[in-house]
Amino acid sequence: MCHIAVIPSVQEASADDLVGKTAIVIDVLRATSTMITALASGCAGIVPVETVCQAKEWQADGVYIGGERGGRKIPGFDYGNSPFEYMSPELRGKIVVMTTTNGTRAIQKAARASHVIAAALLNARAAAALSLAFRRDIVIVCAGTKDRFALEDGLCAGLLIHELERLSGEPLNLDDMGMAMRNAYLQVKERITEEIMASYNGRRLLRAGLKEEVIYCTQTNVVDVVPLLDGDMLIADVLNKPFLPYDEMN
Amino acid sequence: MCHIAVIPSVQEASADDLVGKTAIVIDVLRATSTMITALASGCAGIVPVETVCQAKEWQADGVYIGGERGGRKIPGFDYGNSPFEYMSPELRGKIVVMTTTNGTRAIQKAARASHVIAAALLNARAAAALSLAFRRDIVIVCAGTKDRFALEDGLCAGLLIHELERLSGEPLNLDDMGMAMRNAYLQVKERITEEIMASYNGRRLLRAGLKEEVIYCTQTNVVDVVPLLDGDMLIADVLNKPFLPYDEMN
Repeated sequence: MCHIAVIPSVQEASADDLVGKTAIVIDVLRATSTMITALASGCAGIVPVETVCQAKEWQADGVYIGGERGGRKIPGFDYGNSPFEYMSPELRGKIVVMTTTNGTRAIQKAARASHVIAAALLNARAAAALSLAFRRDIVIVCAGTKDRFALEDGLCAGLLIHELERLSGEPLNLDDMGMAMRNAYLQVKERITEEIMASYNGRRLLRAGLKEEVIYCTQTNVVDVVPLLDGDMLIADVLNKPFLPYDEMN
Repeated sequence: MCHIAVIPSVQEASADDLVGKTAIVIDVLRATSTMITALASGCAGIVPVETVCQAKEWQADGVYIGGERGGRKIPGFDYGNSPFEYMSPELRGKIVVMTTTNGTRAIQKAARASHVIAAALLNARAAAALSLAFRRDIVIVCAGTKDRFALEDGLCAGLLIHELERLSGEPLNLDDMGMAMRNAYLQVKERITEEIMASYNGRRLLRAGLKEEVIYCTQTNVVDVVPLLDGDMLIADVLNKPFLPYDEMN
């Protein structure tokens, strides 16, 4: 039986929890939502790096650098951390090197897993289907904020588990945090945008005038693209696994 | 506005989070449920200590020692960690020194707070009322198991928040984990015993033949006694705060 664990924030993730498993990394506001948007918009690949210096080393023709510190675009960078920026046609076929406070760090930390995918509310069903296709135990790593749990990541973990349960033909073995997050998601699924707007990051982004971004990032199951780590780069995996009843569910 | 934070397991609690606040420590299966039962049965006080050696130093006439390691009674101790043992008439008016793997450690760690109370599902409403009476920010410390989140403690945190919201005349300022746990509790409140039986500790206790203990510990709001730390000892605080509409709610 597939075992599913949820790690509530990135500093609690240890390599031991990840080896031999499929890691699903979540940073709904906004790193993984932005990565999904970029790949869905035709970006060729995203290289997640931990530091601003590492990002700048990559700067070259045909490579853009993007990211944030404290929620703001980094001086000298081509892009910030808004998903809307990454819909730009100039990114089509290009590589973006990205560094964010929590999300790219979580992906780096998850790199010990057998497979690493990036998920958000936008692509949860597709991410659930791809992670089942790897047929390994699954660890869902919530990036969180400043080493603390972030509600939007937890609710996304709950949605992922809900989708995993629907897609899987067999019962799943959830850990206690997974049980809690599934129930928290089910309780608020009809009003998930409002609930996330009341969270720490939701209130912070609303104060910064970024309400439209929160509304965009809290849409569920609207994108089929799943960022999958291939070496150092996240590339788009578009689901085409015939044994999963994905198309029938839309 | 009263701020309420939930710490999902004891190793994540730092003294900085607690200073100047009211700490509510939860270990539903079974340390705080047992403490509540002992005080409700007439025990005069409970001294939580971290180690077996510290407990043995207290052993004397009129003082009993109790506790567990790995869920089992400690050799040479008078009592284990079952709430049923602590209903014994011989404990009436006596002091019990207690050490458990997670619960007493959480109380020790919370001792930096202005007020420390022990809660479980059994006394959640009374614990919520007492903690509001202290008129300070509240930190709910889930003991957890082996440094991991335990579902029953999280659901109890959710019930506490639900009761705090009902009892308080003003809106509460919840942190993200508090929002998640309130929602998880609301989703399963009609079947909380079954949900906890499916958790890690629930399954472990069922395998050990302790189903009746799980059923007992998953009753909600059935005891008015709240263990309150007074120096080194938890004593019974029986709610009699006339400004809270507690009696009307029963």
